[in-house]
Amino acid sequence: MSPTAAEVRPEADTRSRIVEAAERFFREIGYQKTTVADIARALKMSPANVYRFFDSKKAINEAVAERLMAGIEAELGEIARGSAPPRERLVAVIGAMHRMNLERYTDQLRMHEMVEVAMTESWQVVHGHIERITTLFEGLIREGMARGQFEPGDPVLAARCAHVALVRYFHPQLIVQCAREPGPTLEEMTAFVLAGLRSR
Amino acid sequence: MSPTAAEVRPEADTRSRIVEAAERFFREIGYQKTTVADIARALKMSPANVYRFFDSKKAINEAVAERLMAGIEAELGEIARGSAPPRERLVAVIGAMHRMNLERYTDQLRMHEMVEVAMTESWQVVHGHIERITTLFEGLIREGMARGQFEPGDPVLAARCAHVALVRYFHPQLIVQCAREPGPTLEEMTAFVLAGLRSR
Repeated sequence: MSPTAAEVRPEADTRSRIVEAAERFFREIGYQKTTVADIARALKMSPANVYRFFDSKKAINEAVAERLMAGIEAELGEIARGSAPPRERLVAVIGAMHRMNLERYTDQLRMHEMVEVAMTESWQVVHGHIERITTLFEGLIREGMARGQFEPGDPVLAARCAHVALVRYFHPQLIVQCAREPGPTLEEMTAFVLAGLRSR
Repeated sequence: MSPTAAEVRPEADTRSRIVEAAERFFREIGYQKTTVADIARALKMSPANVYRFFDSKKAINEAVAERLMAGIEAELGEIARGSAPPRERLVAVIGAMHRMNLERYTDQLRMHEMVEVAMTESWQVVHGHIERITTLFEGLIREGMARGQFEPGDPVLAARCAHVALVRYFHPQLIVQCAREPGPTLEEMTAFVLAGLRSR
């Protein structure tokens, strides 16, 4: 009998099939209830084979979180490379980031569970994401400074300040906690941040 | 036999003795491990008597959290009523608030547990605290606008924006999560917020 298509797919592919299957389970039944055996069964492989790629459910969760974050980063990167003036692109990046975090991590209660686990147990994954987003901000701020849209200054520090100022709109736990708090809309808060960038 | 001093103390006093004893237990053995029976025993009263004042351990925790927050608010209120220019008082309030949250809720792991429970189960207590702090900010910003230290505008909105921008330095969970993140110091972030207030 000749090998099926699945059997000849390379190792990297098996890895990503595991991550995809895990994400489906996390979305449908939640992180806590999903077992490595569930994931293996859905892929018609043995749990031992899953463990060849990931040494724990935690490691699978990290890969799921990284994949989701990479998707967000790719979409934001595209906006950041647009042709509008840098200030406008920064506003668009901020808006898109809030919307995507809201949709992916907050509206879906089951995904929120996965995120909480990642933030508690695998902060380094979140750290990498924060760094890449801050670098995106930095590029736009640097460009805005060069073009006179923002006051000249240290674009690295300005990017970190702008990102931290907006954490309530990006951080899944804060989005949930502050959902019923009165308080600046994202647009009002973005205007406050832009004012800070204008007058540094 | 004549009644002891403890027996003649009025009801309000019994309530506050329960809260004090609970806080000691939360600090020493943590919220989860403390039972209403522990608190009652320490006060030489029956658990039924504790329940006359608080219908659950959660209600006791809310009173403990409120008491801690009231202490912070009192200290910040004193700074806010000082004689320095409003901008300088705002900077002092921000610094003191960060320091107190760090000391009370973050450095002491056991107290942090109590806070996490309060933030998850009794958000209305946190909400009241946020509102009072924002009102404090608002008064200083209003005064700073009147004296020309800040750009004229809506002091309520400006206060909410300034408070939200600094949440990383006030929110106990964020202080812990971001402890190892590179990133603006409180001083750098405060300068960013002041720049936003200057150019609104």
